[in-house]
Amino acid sequence: MELPVFYAKGLSPEAASYTMDEPTSKHCVQVLRRENGQQVLLANGIGQKFTAVITDDNRKRCTVQIQQQETVPAPTPQLHIAIAFTKNASRMEWFLEKATEIGIQSIIPLITHRTEKEKFKTERLENILVSAMLQSQQYYLPQLAAPTAFEQLVQQHQAVQRFIAHCLPDQKTPLQEVMLPGKDTLLLIGPEGDFTPEEVVAALAKGFQPVSLGNTRLRTETAGMVGAVLMKMS
Amino acid sequence: MELPVFYAKGLSPEAASYTMDEPTSKHCVQVLRRENGQQVLLANGIGQKFTAVITDDNRKRCTVQIQQQETVPAPTPQLHIAIAFTKNASRMEWFLEKATEIGIQSIIPLITHRTEKEKFKTERLENILVSAMLQSQQYYLPQLAAPTAFEQLVQQHQAVQRFIAHCLPDQKTPLQEVMLPGKDTLLLIGPEGDFTPEEVVAALAKGFQPVSLGNTRLRTETAGMVGAVLMKMS
Repeated sequence: MELPVFYAKGLSPEAASYTMDEPTSKHCVQVLRRENGQQVLLANGIGQKFTAVITDDNRKRCTVQIQQQETVPAPTPQLHIAIAFTKNASRMEWFLEKATEIGIQSIIPLITHRTEKEKFKTERLENILVSAMLQSQQYYLPQLAAPTAFEQLVQQHQAVQRFIAHCLPDQKTPLQEVMLPGKDTLLLIGPEGDFTPEEVVAALAKGFQPVSLGNTRLRTETAGMVGAVLMKMS
Repeated sequence: MELPVFYAKGLSPEAASYTMDEPTSKHCVQVLRRENGQQVLLANGIGQKFTAVITDDNRKRCTVQIQQQETVPAPTPQLHIAIAFTKNASRMEWFLEKATEIGIQSIIPLITHRTEKEKFKTERLENILVSAMLQSQQYYLPQLAAPTAFEQLVQQHQAVQRFIAHCLPDQKTPLQEVMLPGKDTLLLIGPEGDFTPEEVVAALAKGFQPVSLGNTRLRTETAGMVGAVLMKMS
């Protein structure tokens, strides 16, 4: 039977033992009924996978002894999505879960001319990323960047391939036709109401390639998810 | 400015006028504040797009005069997804919305050995399909089939290309590599816990090709959505 995997934030590859935080301890001991002597897996979200045995099945501070540690190779290429968050928080939370499951390495909330002002419940969003990472059996936690202004990102991001998905009637190529496999990639997804023409022009001037994500009009979070699939599967 | 599009179920191409149902009338007259003399678009979900003018802005029975009718070409190829619904209804509702936005033509709830018994709120699901069709500016409503037993579907479905996405360690090819563009296609997506080996064998015996949807473990609804993107973009 598959061993359960728990998140062990900050757990160092050299550690000999680890004590889970309270929610994780509760999940392990109370919900999954794990007891002393039983094995579990731990993921620190930066590539290490630990096999451990429970030495104190305390429901608030479950402690385990590390038996074995392996480093999972980092996913390549690095895939980044910068997306204008919608005012509907649950749709963006859904996007974070799906982008993580699909295997995107970083998500950058994009502040655009038409972006709704929005407070981020960062801890809640981090928990969504962690659950999705564990659920999809990955060992690298996607990075959730601080909200970044469009101009700043377009000026500074260093990805080898850079794309902007917009709905203006300009010439665009389907993402899957221009995406070169194996290269670090950034995709920009606009807000409801799209990027402004000025934003699109600014991105093209910086060498972004304009792409389309199919022939239907997609919601912001759907566009992000479609882009994630097309980047990952190229 | 873009005209709003409303769903006009059963509206015949020959009709000269149409009276919206109560929720649609309320949306048109009360929410969007449309008045007599203003134009709206109507979609009957089977390919006809109507331009009409409001002649009675009654908030319960809004009536319009049809000015013009055009038939939008049917999408080809026909893409079908048969998916084992999870017990979490909101995840399947989410899948229906996304599959519609992406442009899938039919969704078949699949009853498998490991499918949770589940009642469908058919009317609620139909409304999700309608909203997603209108929102994504399409004119064909995806068909939501009656729940179908795995054996029956595998025996009877006539799609030219037929794929089964499963997690058993057998030989599988990434869907995007075997999918031939332009052909009617059916993709089977299993339940939480996957298809049984017997179900996979039965499908292969009927000529289904085993496919993978990437190298991470996906939730049922995520797998369905990833499959939808890969079929649509091939």
